[in-house]
Amino acid sequence: MTPTYALTTEGSGSGRGTDDCESVAGGNGDEERLARAGLSRVVEPGDLAALKTFDGLPPLEIWDRLQHNAPGLERWSTRLATADPHRDLERAAAAGARFVIPGDDEWPAEVEVLEEAGQLTRRAGVPFGLWVRGRANLRDAVTRAVAIVGARACSSYGEHVSAELSSGLSDNGLTIVSGGAYGIDAAAHRGALAAAGVTIAVLACGVDVSYPKRNSALLSRIAEDGLVVAELPPSCAPTKLRFLARNRLIAAITQGTVVIEAAVRSGALNTAGWAEQCGRPVLAVPGPITSRMSAGSHLLVRERNAVLATNVADIIEAISPFGTNLTQPPRAAPTLTDTLDPDLQRTLDAVPVHNPAPADRIAGTAGLDLPTTQQCLQTLATLTLITQTPTGWRLPPTPPPRSP
Amino acid sequence: MTPTYALTTEGSGSGRGTDDCESVAGGNGDEERLARAGLSRVVEPGDLAALKTFDGLPPLEIWDRLQHNAPGLERWSTRLATADPHRDLERAAAAGARFVIPGDDEWPAEVEVLEEAGQLTRRAGVPFGLWVRGRANLRDAVTRAVAIVGARACSSYGEHVSAELSSGLSDNGLTIVSGGAYGIDAAAHRGALAAAGVTIAVLACGVDVSYPKRNSALLSRIAEDGLVVAELPPSCAPTKLRFLARNRLIAAITQGTVVIEAAVRSGALNTAGWAEQCGRPVLAVPGPITSRMSAGSHLLVRERNAVLATNVADIIEAISPFGTNLTQPPRAAPTLTDTLDPDLQRTLDAVPVHNPAPADRIAGTAGLDLPTTQQCLQTLATLTLITQTPTGWRLPPTPPPRSP
Repeated sequence: MTPTYALTTEGSGSGRGTDDCESVAGGNGDEERLARAGLSRVVEPGDLAALKTFDGLPPLEIWDRLQHNAPGLERWSTRLATADPHRDLERAAAAGARFVIPGDDEWPAEVEVLEEAGQLTRRAGVPFGLWVRGRANLRDAVTRAVAIVGARACSSYGEHVSAELSSGLSDNGLTIVSGGAYGIDAAAHRGALAAAGVTIAVLACGVDVSYPKRNSALLSRIAEDGLVVAELPPSCAPTKLRFLARNRLIAAITQGTVVIEAAVRSGALNTAGWAEQCGRPVLAVPGPITSRMSAGSHLLVRERNAVLATNVADIIEAISPFGTNLTQPPRAAPTLTDTLDPDLQRTLDAVPVHNPAPADRIAGTAGLDLPTTQQCLQTLATLTLITQTPTGWRLPPTPPPRSP
Repeated sequence: MTPTYALTTEGSGSGRGTDDCESVAGGNGDEERLARAGLSRVVEPGDLAALKTFDGLPPLEIWDRLQHNAPGLERWSTRLATADPHRDLERAAAAGARFVIPGDDEWPAEVEVLEEAGQLTRRAGVPFGLWVRGRANLRDAVTRAVAIVGARACSSYGEHVSAELSSGLSDNGLTIVSGGAYGIDAAAHRGALAAAGVTIAVLACGVDVSYPKRNSALLSRIAEDGLVVAELPPSCAPTKLRFLARNRLIAAITQGTVVIEAAVRSGALNTAGWAEQCGRPVLAVPGPITSRMSAGSHLLVRERNAVLATNVADIIEAISPFGTNLTQPPRAAPTLTDTLDPDLQRTLDAVPVHNPAPADRIAGTAGLDLPTTQQCLQTLATLTLITQTPTGWRLPPTPPPRSP
């Protein structure tokens, strides 16, 4: 048996599945890779029963027990009968993909947060490995990464916002992680690609499966310029439960999750829940309260303490170490008149726009005594905020200058 | 001197300016009303200098000192020279208005919160009295009242939301308080009128002044069905500073302030600031992040801890005593499949939609052993979630029923 697929990406930051094909003699690392590949075929992503049964055993030992039909493992017998990790690794290689496992240079340690994270919708746990398609280095790509998720049936507003925020975050060197679905996901990937940024699609099926079908060209582009990642081995089809399990990976490998449009019952809120489980910030982009599509975002802010995100800076602030990359709240520059003493303001308010008025009439309007008013008028004139005419005072024809 | 205007509304919850005209002999209450009316003409709303100079003195004494040209009061000399509270009260009566002061049955004690509230934009303090036009009883009207404020140049979204929320709050018996301006304010007043609710316009000019001009029909309707209120005596024109001082009254007489659309630099944010000063909740309605008009609302949520408001219930919750009128966060009813045990879910996921599959194939797809799968299939069939055919299992032609 001389497999032609890559069994390792170790020792090379730029190690690529398709580039360093090599024979595999069956060394320790390779045995573990085979075991993990086999387990990724046999055990359903996030399966709590597996987590409980295997309770921290090393993958090689789990695989060994399964191979020897150890008692209590009948649950996995059906898939085990047809599992062939060699073939899966071959298939992956043929599709330009590799299987990345702990210890590999490319392994994203971030995903191990799932060891500590609780369970959600009765799923949990660190994946046995990650099937990866694309030229980028996975670990490097997720060093600074943000998840952007949302509704498939989004509005044009949501699509626009997803693409814009995604491009903006890419311009700031962030990797955009999403689920490769229609709507918000696709717009997020496209926004990153348009900005020549790195984007990762984490799928709920095999990395060689084009799902959804009409996104296949997009997924190919992502594999070209970014990465397509899955916990499931090649050829696997997506299921409802796999989407829910997939969402935990999106949350785990990113520094924060941004929900753009989401219905109250949606996968995006599930991903947000995983981000909470992983201790990562959740951000929600608001929208019209008249749009059902924004209800999920608003719910996150009201009920789950999500950060309201209105622009790229808000997102970068939230995922940055405490006290760094702080946003400047939007604030119009104060005008010169804002900084005036109240009496000056009142006098200025009382000066007519067109028809000049004498000081005593201005004093009455302003509700100030005459000496105070006269002093104020002089000061305002010095500031060129008013002009004096033979018949009294008025505002200058052009608007007063603004302070710098 | 036999004034024909009402100097008192005391002793009658339904006391109306135009209804109970009576002669005034100059009793103590009437002297104070005259003094307060005079002060409302002479002292600019919220004037800090007055607050400091008069430091808690009774209005009668302040007025007396001013009349006797006591030293240190030169600041107010100009307006004092022409002040005539009798004439102002006459003018008000002619315009169908009355002057409500502390001690009157109609006096809204809520406004006295301004005694404790700090200053904002160098204004502060309780008004000497309130000029009121309209048939409703001011104190009754503000027992349960919400301020709805926002941009003059609002979007159609903002206008729609303002009217809808306002109508909805009116339907719940709340009075809608706003500033009578174009845009959000006008839509809020109209929404309340449309729902046959009570609405109050608090003006930055005299209650007999139609400002802004194009809202004069609206202001007349408000005076008819609700109330038009001002701190300034009849005929006064609005100024920038008067708008800022007026905002403190809107915040003070309401249980909470809702900002719908607002630019980052806007009167609505000033009103929100006054609500904070008064210890009243501030709510902000979100909108598209692409709209500059919603920037102020989003800023309030992000930077100033405002409550995100998405509907009438959110607003009622925020202004209700702690723990009452709690909202039910939007939540779709869980479907039957949500509540299934994970193995049942996995089996269901593995059952084909159209072409029946035998149990062993379903077991492989589900990743479960055959006995478990068979048990699950039986259960799912009992729940009518799947159907058995001669060649195996498939989903029923119609969607599975939802749990109640």
